[in-house]
Amino acid sequence: MQFELTKEYLVHLQELIEGDSHTEVKLLMDELHAADIAEIMDNLSIEEAKYVYLLLEGDIASDVLVEIPEDDRKRFLEVLPPEIIASQFIEHMDSDDAADVLGEMSEELKEKVLACIDDVEQAGDIASLLEYDEDTAGGLMAKELVLVNENWTVQTCLREIGKQAEDIDEIYYVYVVDDNNLLRGILSLKKLILNSTSTKISKIFNEDVISVTTSTPQEEVALILEKYDLVAIPVVDAVGRVMGRITFDDVVDVIREEAEKDYQMVSGIAGDVESNDRVWNLTKVRLPWLFIGLFGGILSAKVIGAHEGELGAFPILAAFIPLIGAMAGNIGVQSSSIVVQNLASGASDIEGAFSKLLKEFSVAFLTAFALAASIFCFSFFIYSDIRLTWAVSLSLFAVMIFASLFGTFIPLLLNRLKVDPALATGPFITTINDVLGLLVYFIIASMFFNI
Amino acid sequence: MQFELTKEYLVHLQELIEGDSHTEVKLLMDELHAADIAEIMDNLSIEEAKYVYLLLEGDIASDVLVEIPEDDRKRFLEVLPPEIIASQFIEHMDSDDAADVLGEMSEELKEKVLACIDDVEQAGDIASLLEYDEDTAGGLMAKELVLVNENWTVQTCLREIGKQAEDIDEIYYVYVVDDNNLLRGILSLKKLILNSTSTKISKIFNEDVISVTTSTPQEEVALILEKYDLVAIPVVDAVGRVMGRITFDDVVDVIREEAEKDYQMVSGIAGDVESNDRVWNLTKVRLPWLFIGLFGGILSAKVIGAHEGELGAFPILAAFIPLIGAMAGNIGVQSSSIVVQNLASGASDIEGAFSKLLKEFSVAFLTAFALAASIFCFSFFIYSDIRLTWAVSLSLFAVMIFASLFGTFIPLLLNRLKVDPALATGPFITTINDVLGLLVYFIIASMFFNI
Repeated sequence: MQFELTKEYLVHLQELIEGDSHTEVKLLMDELHAADIAEIMDNLSIEEAKYVYLLLEGDIASDVLVEIPEDDRKRFLEVLPPEIIASQFIEHMDSDDAADVLGEMSEELKEKVLACIDDVEQAGDIASLLEYDEDTAGGLMAKELVLVNENWTVQTCLREIGKQAEDIDEIYYVYVVDDNNLLRGILSLKKLILNSTSTKISKIFNEDVISVTTSTPQEEVALILEKYDLVAIPVVDAVGRVMGRITFDDVVDVIREEAEKDYQMVSGIAGDVESNDRVWNLTKVRLPWLFIGLFGGILSAKVIGAHEGELGAFPILAAFIPLIGAMAGNIGVQSSSIVVQNLASGASDIEGAFSKLLKEFSVAFLTAFALAASIFCFSFFIYSDIRLTWAVSLSLFAVMIFASLFGTFIPLLLNRLKVDPALATGPFITTINDVLGLLVYFIIASMFFNI
Repeated sequence: MQFELTKEYLVHLQELIEGDSHTEVKLLMDELHAADIAEIMDNLSIEEAKYVYLLLEGDIASDVLVEIPEDDRKRFLEVLPPEIIASQFIEHMDSDDAADVLGEMSEELKEKVLACIDDVEQAGDIASLLEYDEDTAGGLMAKELVLVNENWTVQTCLREIGKQAEDIDEIYYVYVVDDNNLLRGILSLKKLILNSTSTKISKIFNEDVISVTTSTPQEEVALILEKYDLVAIPVVDAVGRVMGRITFDDVVDVIREEAEKDYQMVSGIAGDVESNDRVWNLTKVRLPWLFIGLFGGILSAKVIGAHEGELGAFPILAAFIPLIGAMAGNIGVQSSSIVVQNLASGASDIEGAFSKLLKEFSVAFLTAFALAASIFCFSFFIYSDIRLTWAVSLSLFAVMIFASLFGTFIPLLLNRLKVDPALATGPFITTINDVLGLLVYFIIASMFFNI
């Protein structure tokens, strides 16, 4: 039923573009959703994409513009005069999309485009949305929503919805306000349909409405919608007047975005990237963490260099360097990512930091004991060197406990300092634990080898 | 507006429970949503939670039962007779939730409970949902949906909706079918409200409806809803008859679940876990990957042990062991997680495996060159040993290119073999790259040191 982009389809389309068969290309595009057209354009050359795009009309062209990657959109809009941007694109968009697109422009171009919008009310709505921080409910919300007065009847309500709904794709809920525009409650379309036309709205609306304020952070908006299974949520200002609504599709984007950010952090990728990005973009997001790793490696080299004498005398000590480093890194990443995932899930934080660390200590103790015991047996039977065996097992035990407490503590600390705790996952924690693990290893080893 | 669980609230509630003040506890709970009550119960002792739960009534009790963790639900239902489970809980649930809860029970109990459901149609709906694999659209869908015939008028339609909608919390779309129950299109409630009652449905419905089949995998369902910003999607059988619908809230759960699974994999955690789980559960999910890391560490020890002689003669060689291992691990995780994220995003896979590897080679070449050049300068000026400098820089270069190609290739291979490619991220790839990196390092070093 839905479109699936294949290599054959793409080749066929490229041949049509090559042959300048614009009627056929247009026919192909007419069958598709904006999201599909954007996906196709992403797989074409810039020239080919432009050819396709210029064949699209009004609403669909602006829908596609919202769906394509930010860079492409910027490059495309850059060369257009402000009055065309306003009349061909911005005026066809929902207010939240319009504000997002305008938000990407320079201050100068933004003002010019706003001035070119014919409908003053629409321009005002967009301008007011631009005032909010883009990571808050204000930055996510759209101005398009249906409001009804609690004193109306179902009849008046249906008539007013008819008027207000012209610009709105989908109505999910109707919000009920009083004469001062203060949010009073919510009314589902189902109730409107199932009640007689003379029923007063005040008799049938549900007062139990969940809302957010314009300054609520977007992660919190997402958690609230998810927790209460809402399709849309009204956004009110500080005094409770309805300012807009946020729909589930924007929230799904937020959830996806947050999850990807945490995933990239733990994988050591500094920024949003897709495997079909350009080589330079892919390199750019990977270098920062690699350099941090390199720096850690240099520190490790310093630590080991300081023990050159011992290593010369007992070279077998070097054999367990990777094991100590890897285990410290692995357990550290586990600990920090459990904390980060817990903080991101918005689970109520009844448990204090101290009891979290205490619990982590128990877990670390169990795991460290299991692994140290295994390596004790292994080393004893393979190397049959009791000093080495004790040095390695004890170091592993100490390093693992230390690394896991460290991996729990750092993200909790960052979170308290209002820094993204996800910073403490991935290469960051493995690098620090690598170096500290080595220090511990050589201290313990030098005790056993009497160096 | 929404509830936030605080330590004070919890202490107050526990005091009320302690003092057996059931009227007050009930009053507190009456103000809350099922999701909030479930959250509170999760923070109470088993005895306290049971006290709270037994004060809840019909619908809210079954809603809370759906929200609490699976283990708690199982423990609770285990001790109840089948007829109570059916009449108090299952009969109040939507068909998809009912099927999920029954799906967790033993075959024997499941059949007993189904037999106790009074409404045969409801029991039949649930039984049919139990037939589907839980990771497919069939396993996600609910039977509650509103169907209208294309030959009806708006008037008939509104009357029928009134009848059908009794058991449905929210109507998002009305699906239009022909006399054979084959899906023909979709009708928004907005259209129904805005058209006159004598209008024929066939005149106003939208034929352009996106649907999935009962066997569509849940990840694909999520991607389709997300791509086209749908609140709900109809599910059809192989011949196109409407079988149920999936709503956005179930899909949000799938998105969250998939993201968490990938995140856990790259962090080396083998299973779903929250930081407030029991110590033993936390330990259990962490041990498997740690043992894999330990095994890698032992292999590394073997590799280094084989070069004990060289290390005795040139102990400074040991200094760069952590650097080589860490860089191979870091770049390998980056590569594999970019591939995994790309596969999970459902982006169309026009680019073949070969061109992916070629691009990865370019990225690896650039990053490896930058880092090898840095370590060359560092080592040259600090250690002023040209053999060591060449050995370390060349090894780093070779190891990074190898590790990144490996990190790209393995998840692509797993995906081709229909194994979850996320397996190839995290400790798995770092462990393999650690060992292989060391091998390369000692081969190159032995060339420079003529050992």
